[in-house]
Parts: sequence; C-alpha cells; structure tokens
Amino acid sequence: MIRVNENYSRIKPTYLFAEIAARVAAHQKAHPDAKVIRLGIGDVTEPLAPAVIAAMHRAVDDEAARGTFHGYGPEQGYAFLRDRIAEVDFHARGVDVKADEIFVSDGAKCDCGNFQELLAADAKVAVGDPVYPVYVDTNVMAGRHDIQLLPCTKANSFVPSPDGCDADVVYLCYPNNPTGATASLEQLQAWVDWANAGRRLILFDAAYEAFIRTPGVPHSIFECKGARTCAVEMRSFSKTAGFTGVRCGYTVVPSELVAYAADGAAVPLKPMWTRRQTTKFNGASYITQRGAEAVYSPEGLAQTKAQIDFYLENARLVSAALAKAGYDVAGGVDSPYVWVDVKGDSWKFFDHLLAEANVVTTPGAGFGRAGEGFIRISAFNSRENVLEAIDRISKAL
Amino acid sequence: MIRVNENYSRIKPTYLFAEIAARVAAHQKAHPDAKVIRLGIGDVTEPLAPAVIAAMHRAVDDEAARGTFHGYGPEQGYAFLRDRIAEVDFHARGVDVKADEIFVSDGAKCDCGNFQELLAADAKVAVGDPVYPVYVDTNVMAGRHDIQLLPCTKANSFVPSPDGCDADVVYLCYPNNPTGATASLEQLQAWVDWANAGRRLILFDAAYEAFIRTPGVPHSIFECKGARTCAVEMRSFSKTAGFTGVRCGYTVVPSELVAYAADGAAVPLKPMWTRRQTTKFNGASYITQRGAEAVYSPEGLAQTKAQIDFYLENARLVSAALAKAGYDVAGGVDSPYVWVDVKGDSWKFFDHLLAEANVVTTPGAGFGRAGEGFIRISAFNSRENVLEAIDRISKAL
Repeated sequence: MIRVNENYSRIKPTYLFAEIAARVAAHQKAHPDAKVIRLGIGDVTEPLAPAVIAAMHRAVDDEAARGTFHGYGPEQGYAFLRDRIAEVDFHARGVDVKADEIFVSDGAKCDCGNFQELLAADAKVAVGDPVYPVYVDTNVMAGRHDIQLLPCTKANSFVPSPDGCDADVVYLCYPNNPTGATASLEQLQAWVDWANAGRRLILFDAAYEAFIRTPGVPHSIFECKGARTCAVEMRSFSKTAGFTGVRCGYTVVPSELVAYAADGAAVPLKPMWTRRQTTKFNGASYITQRGAEAVYSPEGLAQTKAQIDFYLENARLVSAALAKAGYDVAGGVDSPYVWVDVKGDSWKFFDHLLAEANVVTTPGAGFGRAGEGFIRISAFNSRENVLEAIDRISKAL
Repeated sequence: MIRVNENYSRIKPTYLFAEIAARVAAHQKAHPDAKVIRLGIGDVTEPLAPAVIAAMHRAVDDEAARGTFHGYGPEQGYAFLRDRIAEVDFHARGVDVKADEIFVSDGAKCDCGNFQELLAADAKVAVGDPVYPVYVDTNVMAGRHDIQLLPCTKANSFVPSPDGCDADVVYLCYPNNPTGATASLEQLQAWVDWANAGRRLILFDAAYEAFIRTPGVPHSIFECKGARTCAVEMRSFSKTAGFTGVRCGYTVVPSELVAYAADGAAVPLKPMWTRRQTTKFNGASYITQRGAEAVYSPEGLAQTKAQIDFYLENARLVSAALAKAGYDVAGGVDSPYVWVDVKGDSWKFFDHLLAEANVVTTPGAGFGRAGEGFIRISAFNSRENVLEAIDRISKAL
C-alpha cells in the first residue's frame, strides 16, 4: 500500500490570497461598476526592458537554426550569464563571489523552497514573523514542524536580533517581504557572527536587492565578514527586471560553506547543491538566460534601473499619502512594499479600503501573528492607478 | 550546529557521462584531427519548428507592452496550454484526462524527481534495470535506499512483469530509455491491475511517446482500464518538439488518485501535488508555454511530426546497419534509442567505437547492472553525421 508524506497534512492552508480573491470577487459582484485597483500581490506590471526583449528575440532565432540551436544547457546555468552576475552584482561592489559559486535557476521561490533538502530532517529552523510563507511551508512539508518565529516589530525596526535564537538555520530576507524594512551591515554582521560561532547556516533572500538606493544599506550578505563560511544567498530577476513571467533567479553557495555529518565531519554544501540541481533540475530556459544576460548590458542596466525607480516613486507616493493621513508607515524606501500600522484589525482595514476606496491591499495577519495590525501596500502598478488609489484611500480614511 | 541530509552521501556518483566525457577528451587530445560524432547523450539537434518559433516571438512581444504583459502565471500552467494538451494528447485518442488534471512544468525531469516528495519516506520503490538514473537518485536523496530492481532483459523483451514485485510504487518508462523498448497494452494493464489490487502507485514516464508509430502500442498509461485510480503520467516537450533548451513538460494526476495515511484513510494526490507546485514552483515561462501551445496547432503538429520522423529514420538506419553487422538490436522503432547487444563488456565496446570509428555511444553498464553487455546509440543527430557514423561503425566492426 502506498502511503503519503503525512507532513503535508500539517501545512497550514494559506487562505490569504484565496480569501482576498473571494472578498474582492464578492465586492465586485455587489458593485459591478466599481473600478478596483490592486495593490495587493507583489507582481510587476511594467513591460520588460527593450534590451531584454531584443535579446530574447535573438535567442528565439538561435533556436530556429541548426548552427545556433541550444538544447540541454548546463544545469547550473550558462557561463555567459554566471560571469556577468559575478562581475556586476558582486565584483563591482567589491564582494567576493565567483562565477562557479552561482547557480542559475527558474526562480528564487524554487531555490528558497528546495535548499532545505540538503539539511538534516531534524534541523531547527528560525524565520522572521511576519514572513514569506514559502520558508515555513517547505520546511513543514519536510517534517520540520517546530519553527522558531522571530518577531519583527516596530520595537526592533522589523529586524530581529540573533540573541536567544538557538536554531540551526535561519531565513533572513532584506529588503524584507512583507515589511519593506532593510537591515544594516551591523545587523547582518551580528547574524553572521552568530552563525559562525555556532556552526549555523543563514539562508539569505535578497530578491528585492535592486530596490536599495540608500548608501550604506548592504546589497548582499557577503558584504559581511565571514559570511562565506555560513551563508547562502538567493537572488531573483523577478522584481529586478520584471521576470515574474519569464522565470529566472540564482543562488550563491560559497566554496567554503559546510554543514556537518552526524560524526561531526564537515560536508561542503556546494557539491551537494550541484548534485541536487543536476539530478532534479535541467537548467533555466536558454531564451530566459539570454534575457537575463541582457539585464547586465549598459542599456539593460539603465532600463531596469529606470523601472525600479518608477516603482520606488510609486512607493514614495503611497508612503507619503498614508503618513499624511496620520498613519505610521514603514518600508517604501529601498523596497516596493509599504507597511502600514493600521492601529487595529488588519482584515477590517482591508475590508474598509476595499469597500470605500475599491483598493485591494494585503492584511498583515496573512503573513504571521506579528503582522496583525498592519497592511502591506504594493507599489507594483501604473502611476495613474497608484495616484488614483492614493486619492481614493485619502478620502476613505 | 547545522547537519546535512546524510542520504546524499548514499547516492552513487554517476560517473557515466563524466567518464564518457573524460574518455572522449583523452581521445581527442591524442587525435586532434579526428572528427568525433556524438550519438551518446539524448539531446535533440534539430532546430525548433517554425510554428513554435513564431509563437515565441509573439510571446516575447507580449512581454514588451503593458497591455499584453504576463507576470506570474498560474503555477499549474496556463489554461490555453492545458486545454490543448487535454484535447490533442488525450481526448483525440479517446483517453479521459481533464485539463484540470494536467500540471505544466519546466520539464519532466523535475516532475520525475519531485513527485516522490508526496510519498511516505519508507515507501518501497521499484524501477527497471537498466534505468534512467533520476528515479533512483531522487529516492535515495529522500532516504529510500532499498530500491527493487526489475531486470529488463532480452528474455522479457525489456518489459518486466509485476509478478513478485512487492513495492509500493513503481516507475515505468515506455517507450523506454535506455532500451528503446515499448510495452504492449496487455503488459501495462498487468501493472495497472497489480497496482489497483495492492493499492499501489505507478509513476509512468511517457517522455518518448511522440516516437510511437506502430498501431496498437499504447501512448498513455491511461489507455489501461483502472489507471485513473493508480497512476501518474509524466510527459515532455523535450523530445516531442525539441524543447530540451526551452524547458516544458507536464504531469497528469487524476482526480480519483489516492494514497493512504497511516490510519488507512485515502488521501487524494491531486491536491497534494497542487500544494507542492504552488509552494515550491512558480510556473513555466510564459514564452515557453506559448511555444508549447503552438506545438498543437495544425502547422506545429505537422512540423514536429516531421522532426520525429526524421529522428526515427536515423534510428532505423542505425538499427539496420548494426543488424547487418551481425548484432542483435532492440529499440530503434517507436523510439530514438537503439539498444545493441554487444556480446561482451560495454565499456570495451564503447572504447572500440571511439578509437576505431570516432563515434561516441553510451555503455549500457552506466544505466544499471542489467545494462551490461549492451550499448545505447542515440538517433539525435544530423542525417549526414548519422550516415557517416554508420559507415565508420560498419568498417570498425
């Protein structure tokens, strides 16, 4: 008789986006003429950069002729892309990450979900609260049910300290989803020191790195001293270059990084991740990888920076409007997310904005207990819609 | 202290393709002028069909404008593709598979590797021998070390019977990689009856389905009576339409399919797979899915059929040449792989063809113990190279 992995029955159903969808649908049914503006989900809305489009057209043409056809590529990604990532995202910032430590994938969500496969089933896991649910759910699926929650509150500026954390592995995400907070170099260094002192592991999600504009805010965990012996970093082209539908991300696993066997022997994680990816993955689309390569061309860098600037201005406008209306606002700088203290029940506030302003947001309670009392507003929309939403929200508050 | 998943240390290193690469490199170094022809790895060589190329150019253009831009898509795949798959691959053949039972992915390798996550850690697994290594390695990574090997030999025409198999789950692949064998409807029905009688599961890999030309050979496990209560089927666009570099496949999980909790309760697998894919995957590239959709257009169907016909003619030519040289040959019909009984050590035969004919093949021993004594010759190459390889092989034997 075939039995199931019963850990799946312990995953909490994520009612969040389903519940939002249900409430929006009910609202639209009751008000068929209402023009609803969605500032809920974190999906990009701007078209891809012209440099990326041109590169992908060329790549499609490559696939049309025998001499330039690309079949199976290297599971870790093409050198033409890994070399550019190493150069622009790391070397240009003085950060030591080598091309052969970069693993290109079809998205950071997959890498965030899959990396735990390399770890012992009884590894103790810690995550921020509120949190991107993928970190939690993928560990529960693997049997790690007792997850330590690190409250991210106004009191700690939404960056928890490692003091008192006895986990073996921690997921950190900065700039943060959902709070929009950034961590300082000192704060990240404290986590790196904690990890090295206890032979622990940091899984650092830097999916929103491209939104950082404030000087001094770290772009990579590898800006910290000693991070190469305790950290993995995930990056994404989804928000950096609008690749949510095109699918590309990457993970950095330093050569020095080890975890430990039961007998205490150090086991390098890079060969294990190589083995995982070559066995269970077959590389990202060649066309996608050529598009990602073009992000690093002079035109691509300028065009994608302009896109991010556009979303950041949206975030600034939203932040300013909520602050003007008397709300305490976090995020919205160096991040596409505005995290608003609504001084009450987050679902009630969500319902109020939907009913009175026809604007969809995300209730903070959906991201964890410490998210209650907040809503997340996303800057991913057209300027016209953002201005209209701000106007309606201001009137409704 | 962070500990590793020690199951990884029990995966057998796959020396196969690394060893082949090393031997070919040494040969080329010793004979720098030799024009080596590769009939080893199963990667396609023909460019994508014009209908697919045109569709992908249109999809790239969709991503260039705000009104047609596609961000995050449904993790299970777009309806425009799932509907066409259900219609053409199943309904047109009288097979009952609904669009909402189809899960589009970035490739069958990923699905073959990931599906075992839904099963209990102590599930007993059976695979054919010789075998596609992904089935074995992904189970070993998950702690299932004792895998039952079902010998596929000349005596059983490379299709094992379920008699005596006491596994909870079996991986079947027909047309087979590496032997090129097909299974009859009666043979597959025996496996389905075995599975239903014992509440077991069949994971059916139909990646090479498009190569079937012989009337009566089943294209899908779901042609068998009762398969909807015991089987999952994986398909791929890699070989069907040359998508090895573009990345698309799909998995069928019938609504009726269940596995069992420890208390004997039936647990439907479709919601579990939905949960797995929505949590750990973010959908295949929109551009790729538009390309896959075009495979089902009248032009796409005709063009991809012509590609497969081309490879099948290559396989026929290779088969005939080896048979003429006095070798017992299997596969090569309804399959791109020719499986040659070399009457001796498969690595020695590999070395002989490399040294004397400058042709790269794959030694059967690399696919498992029962593969010893055979080599696999792949039909994926240009006609010119295949004819040249046949000429050289014939002289060398």
